[in-house]
Amino acid sequence: MHTESVAALDIGGTKIAGALVDGRGRILVRAQRPTPAREDGETVMRAVEEVLAEVSASPLWPSVTAVGIGSAGPVDASAGTVSPVNVPAWRGFPLVERVRAAVGGLPVTLVGDGVAITAAEHWQGAAGGYDDALCMVVSTGVGGGLVLNGRLHPGPTGNSGHIGHISVELDGDSCPCGGRGCVERIASGPNIARRALEGGWEPAPGGDRSAAAVAAAARAGHPVAIASFDRAAQALAAGIAATATLVEIRIAVIGGGVAGAGEVLFAPLRRSLRDYAALSFVQRLEVVPARMGTDAGLVGAAAAALLGSRDGTKTAAVGG
Amino acid sequence: MHTESVAALDIGGTKIAGALVDGRGRILVRAQRPTPAREDGETVMRAVEEVLAEVSASPLWPSVTAVGIGSAGPVDASAGTVSPVNVPAWRGFPLVERVRAAVGGLPVTLVGDGVAITAAEHWQGAAGGYDDALCMVVSTGVGGGLVLNGRLHPGPTGNSGHIGHISVELDGDSCPCGGRGCVERIASGPNIARRALEGGWEPAPGGDRSAAAVAAAARAGHPVAIASFDRAAQALAAGIAATATLVEIRIAVIGGGVAGAGEVLFAPLRRSLRDYAALSFVQRLEVVPARMGTDAGLVGAAAAALLGSRDGTKTAAVGG
Repeated sequence: MHTESVAALDIGGTKIAGALVDGRGRILVRAQRPTPAREDGETVMRAVEEVLAEVSASPLWPSVTAVGIGSAGPVDASAGTVSPVNVPAWRGFPLVERVRAAVGGLPVTLVGDGVAITAAEHWQGAAGGYDDALCMVVSTGVGGGLVLNGRLHPGPTGNSGHIGHISVELDGDSCPCGGRGCVERIASGPNIARRALEGGWEPAPGGDRSAAAVAAAARAGHPVAIASFDRAAQALAAGIAATATLVEIRIAVIGGGVAGAGEVLFAPLRRSLRDYAALSFVQRLEVVPARMGTDAGLVGAAAAALLGSRDGTKTAAVGG
Repeated sequence: MHTESVAALDIGGTKIAGALVDGRGRILVRAQRPTPAREDGETVMRAVEEVLAEVSASPLWPSVTAVGIGSAGPVDASAGTVSPVNVPAWRGFPLVERVRAAVGGLPVTLVGDGVAITAAEHWQGAAGGYDDALCMVVSTGVGGGLVLNGRLHPGPTGNSGHIGHISVELDGDSCPCGGRGCVERIASGPNIARRALEGGWEPAPGGDRSAAAVAAAARAGHPVAIASFDRAAQALAAGIAATATLVEIRIAVIGGGVAGAGEVLFAPLRRSLRDYAALSFVQRLEVVPARMGTDAGLVGAAAAALLGSRDGTKTAAVGG
């Protein structure tokens, strides 16, 4: 039987992944290249084209009806361009047009990577069945996306749900984004590790200085490690509560490396939520771990492509 | 010609207003009662019924196709109930059912008052033509509502846009809502006045201790008064920037008594926005004064009713 499938691209600062994905979210074919992030823009594009060439060599390619791209941000879905922070040569790079040319004119949908993982969790993961959800990644950075009224909410430029860069501390530390007191500046893995080191936590000699090592120390009862996770949880709770108070989400799904700390993060997070999600209509908010693994970006890009083509938008943006 | 009109109710802690509003947002008939806010729930409901009786005595009543209610929150549009903070006898009060009974079964749409003023500004005011907008009231409290993808976004319970109760200070002062560091706790009129008084500002003997008096002092160059408005502006900027970062609004419309301070508020607000709205996709955010006057609540309730009946929802909630 000939069923619909789509091509998906997941573009990050480390790797460029591609896949063919069927209408049920199963990955049929894969390809991957390292991102030549320090090279010129055409060299980066060539890696994308190689990934596309590899997946389009599949005998399943003729069933492909659309292409979905989830890209490190910022993106501009309305213009079809991307400017990933970690790929300096791409600033306003016309990725949608270039991909469309490479695939013979198929419709191409572009969303930010936070929106892509949200599409994946809503389609196949922990946000399934929820009409109003926030999905997040807490890792080297903090990102996210929103489902509102049962639909993905990319926003006009595909960047909605950027919870890592809302301020929860008016007088907080400067953030590399240009803001101040951002959730990411407090809750990302590197910031959890930094705070633990500043507080006097000492990793094993020559050992792991990552947030995962801080999590292990917290599990073993190290008070400075626990305090660093508690502070991260507090910032995440304030950000999640703000989102719920603004748009009435019912569930927050959290993935990424830092979420892998498990109850070291989730227990203080649920505690802190009671301090910040106080109004009656946000008190029932659930917070759960993500279910999609490392394929979330690809599956989500595929979901965005399917939504884009079903909406008949056939343009860069997933219409709301 | 017999054109569609709707009945509107604007229910607050001080007054209960009613009107007949035509399809262009013009108020045709009005009625009003003081809110007997300290009486029992049936006495409050009787005031609503008197307002409805007065407007339904109009010869225009037969053209009414629906009723819209904007109520002080929290509301629960999915249950059709209201629990206004300032009307203690109404807790989970079944206002939609009671109003429907009073108007012979017409469809009734309930939204929070922040959502109602947003509907009004989008329909007739400063947010007209914008597909993604935040509208706010900064007054005794701080409230708001959202337009997303060109449509009012009440959220599942009609409370979306509660920007006054998102936290912008993790370690900030406790808020009466149960939260901590809320925008309202810093930026409302009473908090602007409190901070000025604590800082050493002295009102004229026996004189006005309101935020309007602080605004006058700020205009005259009083540094403590200026500082209090600056801090309020900073909290509002962080809240507005958070909203833009989460859902990509393009304009923030600000009304209410404190917004009447004009540039004393708007100048530092625009300045502070540069500190908190740093990502590329939120930098073009506009901040403008509201255009609807004291009728915003009524006109917005009417807009919600028209949207509700056009959507064919015919239920308590304005479907998204």
